[in-house]
Amino acid sequence: MNDLQYEFGMIGLGVMGRNLMLNIADHNFSVIGLDLDPVKAAAVETEAGTGQSVRGTTSAEAFVQALRKPRAIMLLVPAGKPVDAVIASLLPLLEPGDIVIDGGNSYFPDTERRVAMLEENGIHFFGMGISGGEKGARFGPSMMPGGNREAYERLRPVFEAIAAKVNGEPCVTYLGNGSAGNYVKMVHNGIEYGVMELIAETYDLLKRGVGLSDEELQAVFQDWNQTELQSFLIEITGDILKKKDDITGQPLVNVISDVARSKGTGKWTSQNAMDLQVPVPSIDMAVLMRDMSKFKEERVEAAKQLSNNALQTNIDSDRQAFIGQMRNAFYFAMISTYAQGLAQLKVASEEYKYGLQLQDVAKIWRGGCIIRAACLTDIRAAYEKNPSLPNLLLDSKVGGDLLVRQDDIRSVLKAAIDKGIPMPAFMASLSYFDAYRSETLPTNIIQAQRDYFGAHTYERRDKPGFFHTEWD
Amino acid sequence: MNDLQYEFGMIGLGVMGRNLMLNIADHNFSVIGLDLDPVKAAAVETEAGTGQSVRGTTSAEAFVQALRKPRAIMLLVPAGKPVDAVIASLLPLLEPGDIVIDGGNSYFPDTERRVAMLEENGIHFFGMGISGGEKGARFGPSMMPGGNREAYERLRPVFEAIAAKVNGEPCVTYLGNGSAGNYVKMVHNGIEYGVMELIAETYDLLKRGVGLSDEELQAVFQDWNQTELQSFLIEITGDILKKKDDITGQPLVNVISDVARSKGTGKWTSQNAMDLQVPVPSIDMAVLMRDMSKFKEERVEAAKQLSNNALQTNIDSDRQAFIGQMRNAFYFAMISTYAQGLAQLKVASEEYKYGLQLQDVAKIWRGGCIIRAACLTDIRAAYEKNPSLPNLLLDSKVGGDLLVRQDDIRSVLKAAIDKGIPMPAFMASLSYFDAYRSETLPTNIIQAQRDYFGAHTYERRDKPGFFHTEWD
Repeated sequence: MNDLQYEFGMIGLGVMGRNLMLNIADHNFSVIGLDLDPVKAAAVETEAGTGQSVRGTTSAEAFVQALRKPRAIMLLVPAGKPVDAVIASLLPLLEPGDIVIDGGNSYFPDTERRVAMLEENGIHFFGMGISGGEKGARFGPSMMPGGNREAYERLRPVFEAIAAKVNGEPCVTYLGNGSAGNYVKMVHNGIEYGVMELIAETYDLLKRGVGLSDEELQAVFQDWNQTELQSFLIEITGDILKKKDDITGQPLVNVISDVARSKGTGKWTSQNAMDLQVPVPSIDMAVLMRDMSKFKEERVEAAKQLSNNALQTNIDSDRQAFIGQMRNAFYFAMISTYAQGLAQLKVASEEYKYGLQLQDVAKIWRGGCIIRAACLTDIRAAYEKNPSLPNLLLDSKVGGDLLVRQDDIRSVLKAAIDKGIPMPAFMASLSYFDAYRSETLPTNIIQAQRDYFGAHTYERRDKPGFFHTEWD
Repeated sequence: MNDLQYEFGMIGLGVMGRNLMLNIADHNFSVIGLDLDPVKAAAVETEAGTGQSVRGTTSAEAFVQALRKPRAIMLLVPAGKPVDAVIASLLPLLEPGDIVIDGGNSYFPDTERRVAMLEENGIHFFGMGISGGEKGARFGPSMMPGGNREAYERLRPVFEAIAAKVNGEPCVTYLGNGSAGNYVKMVHNGIEYGVMELIAETYDLLKRGVGLSDEELQAVFQDWNQTELQSFLIEITGDILKKKDDITGQPLVNVISDVARSKGTGKWTSQNAMDLQVPVPSIDMAVLMRDMSKFKEERVEAAKQLSNNALQTNIDSDRQAFIGQMRNAFYFAMISTYAQGLAQLKVASEEYKYGLQLQDVAKIWRGGCIIRAACLTDIRAAYEKNPSLPNLLLDSKVGGDLLVRQDDIRSVLKAAIDKGIPMPAFMASLSYFDAYRSETLPTNIIQAQRDYFGAHTYERRDKPGFFHTEWD
C-alpha cells in the first residue's frame, strides 16, 4: 500500500482494461485498477513491472479512497446488467463531482438512463466508445466520449495522452451530451459492418467470378492498401489472406466457416436508423448478410436445387482492367457507406440533442479505430469546410470522386448480376447514390396506393394540405 | 332498448368498426357497438336501417349487459395507449370466459402483455390483424386471429361469415397462440411495403428509363392484372394511373407529392427480422425508400450537383420485349419478397411458440387483404405439400418459376444500373435469391477480420470448436 493519489481508476481488468492501464502508465499517469478476481488484480501490477505507478486491488473501498478527487473511474465490464451492478456498488462510495466513464459498447438508451440517475447524485456519467481492439487499447485507441462538457476537462489530459495520434492530433475529443459517445461508436460499428461486407463481396466476386487465385487475391488487397483505399480493414485483409493454416497448409481463410457472428452494434445502428427514418442501406445489407450466413444447411440445399450455372465460366474481361474497376467500385461503395452513417449521426444529433460536430467525428476516426482510412481526410475536410453539410455526397470533392467512379461500379455490378454472385451491400451503396440524386422518386405511387386502400390521404406538389380521392 | 342478447360487440365506431358491424349484420348476427361519441353510436343504427339487429350505445355497462355470454367484444381503437385504456375500463364489467379481440395493428409485444394480464382474470385476449381497408371491412376482409384455441370456437361462426371468400373458403382461420395474429399481420404489412415499392420501382424504370407515356403505363398495369401478376396492388395501380386530376387535368398521380408516409408496421417487420436474425432485404429496402423520399430538399440539391446524364436517352430496347422482361422480373421479385416474409414467420413461430401453419397463412391471404394475389395459390400449395418447408424458394414449382425468370430480372436490373435509376427492392430480391443459393458465402473473411481485430474467434469447416489466431 502507498498513499499516492491515483490520477485514474479502472474497473474490470480483462485484457482491454489491463492494456488501457498500461497505456496510461506509459504516459506517466498513475492508475489503479479494481477487479474482484485477485489474479487479474495482481496481473496488471506484474505486467507493468517496477517503476510504474500501477496498482491493482480487489477492494472497492481501497480503490475509491486511492483516487484523486474529483475521481475519474472507467468501467470496462460487459454491457448491460454488469454495468448497472458496478454502478450500484460504487455509488455509495462516490462524492459529487466524481466522474464515471463506461468504456463498453453500451446501448445508448441505457447510457441516457444512467446519466440521469447519476446526475441526481451530482456524479457525471460518460458513455465512451473505444475502438481499436486489444492492440489499440495498449498503444493508442480511438475514443468517443460523450457526457458533461466541463467534466471532460478532468479527463482530457489522460485521454489525449493515450489516444492514437494522426499527424500529432489525438484521436479523442469531447463529442457531445448524454449518450453521444455510445451513439457515435454504434454508428462507427455500423460503418465497420458495412465496409467488412464490401470487402467480403469484393473477395467473392474476384474469386468466384473472375477466378483469381488465393495468391492473386492477397496481392490485390496488399496493393490496394497503397492507394486511396488505404485503411485498416483493407490492410488486415491482405494479412489475413497471407496466413496459412498449420494443419492443412491451405490459406487459413479457406478453412474458416462462413457462418458469421455478430454482437449487436450493427443491428442497433440499422434498427435505430429506421426509428430515425434515415436510410442506411449498406449497413442494413451488411447486418443481414451475417444473418443469411447462418442458414448454412438451407443454402447447401438451395445450391443443389437452384444451381448457378453461370459460375462455371469466369468473367470474360481483362483481369487487370477488371481489378481496376473493382477498386473504383470499392471506393465508391465505401464512401457511400460513410455518407450513410454520417447522415444518421446528423439526424441523431438533432433528435437527441447531442450537439455533434461531424468534423470532430471524422477527425477522431482517422486513427486508432477499426474504420480508420485515408478517405477520412477528405471526409473531415468536407465537414470542416461546411459543418452543417446535409450529406457527404453534397461535398463537391467527395461527390466528384464518386461521379468519376460511377461507371466502374456500374460495370462491376452488371458483371456480378450476370454471374449470380450476391453483392447486396455494393448494390445498396449504388442505389443510395442513385436515389439520393433523384429529384423525384416514384413514391407518389405509394402515396396514391395508401390513399386508395386505406384513405391515408396524400399531399400535392402544387399546393399545401392533405387530400383524399375516391379512386374507383 | 330491447332485451336481445347480442352475439357480438364492437368498441370504437369509426369507419372500420361501423363497416364491420354492418358486415356482421348482413350475415344475420346481432351486433352492438359502443362509442363515447353519441353521433357515432347513433350513426351505425341509421346506416344499418330497420330490420337489422344493430345497436349503438355510449354506455359501457349497457353494452356489456346486452352481450350473450361468454361475451365476444372487438376493439377497433388506435393501437397503443387507447387499447390499454379501453381494456382497463372494460375489465371490471367482464366475467371469466369472456373474449376481447383487438382488431388494430397493435405491436405484438403489447399483445403478449395484454394476453398475460387478462388471463389472470380468466379473460381470453385475441390480437387479430384485419386487412382490406374500409371496403374489406364492409364486404369481406382477411382476418388474422391469434389467441386461445378453444375460445376461438366462440368467434368462428361470425368471423367465417364476414370474411372474404375464395372458392368458398373463408379468409380467416385460427393462426396460433398469443400475439400470433398481430405478428402475421405485421409481416403481411411488411410484404405489402415490399410489393408497393416493387411497383413504384417498376413504374419509375418504365417511365424515366423506357419513356412510356402515362397512357402506356396505365395499360401495362391493367394488362398485367390479367396475367400471373394478378393481384390487388397491381389492379389498383392500373386504376390509380387512370385517374385524372380535377384541377390540372393531368393524371392525378403526377401531382401527388413523392414524400411518402408510413405508420410503423413495415418498420417493425424489418426491425424484428433483425432481432430474429432472418434476412428480409426487400422489405428493408421498401421501408428505407419511404424514408429516403422524405429528404426532398436534399434530393433536389443532389440532383443538380450529381446530375444523371444517363436519363437523357431512353433504354435502347424493343419496348414490348422490355415490358415482357419487366413482367417476369416483377414476378421474380414479388415471389422473393413473399419468401422472405414467410421465412420470417417460420422463425418467429419457433421463437415465440406460435404454432403457425404457413399453409393456413397463405390460405387466408388469398382474398380480402392488401397482398392478395394469384401467386398465393402456388404458395399455399407449396406449404400444403410440405408444411415444414424451410423456405418458399425450396419448393420445386416456385423455385422453377424463378429459375426461368432469372435472366429477365438480371437484364432489367442491368438496364436500371445503366440508367442510374434506383431499384433497391428489386436488387435486394435478386440478391436474396443469389445469396440463398450460395453454398458458400464470403463471410469467412468477416469471421477472420473479427478474430484479427477483436479476438472474437472463428469456427472451422473441418472440425468443431472455436479457434483464435495471431494474425500479424
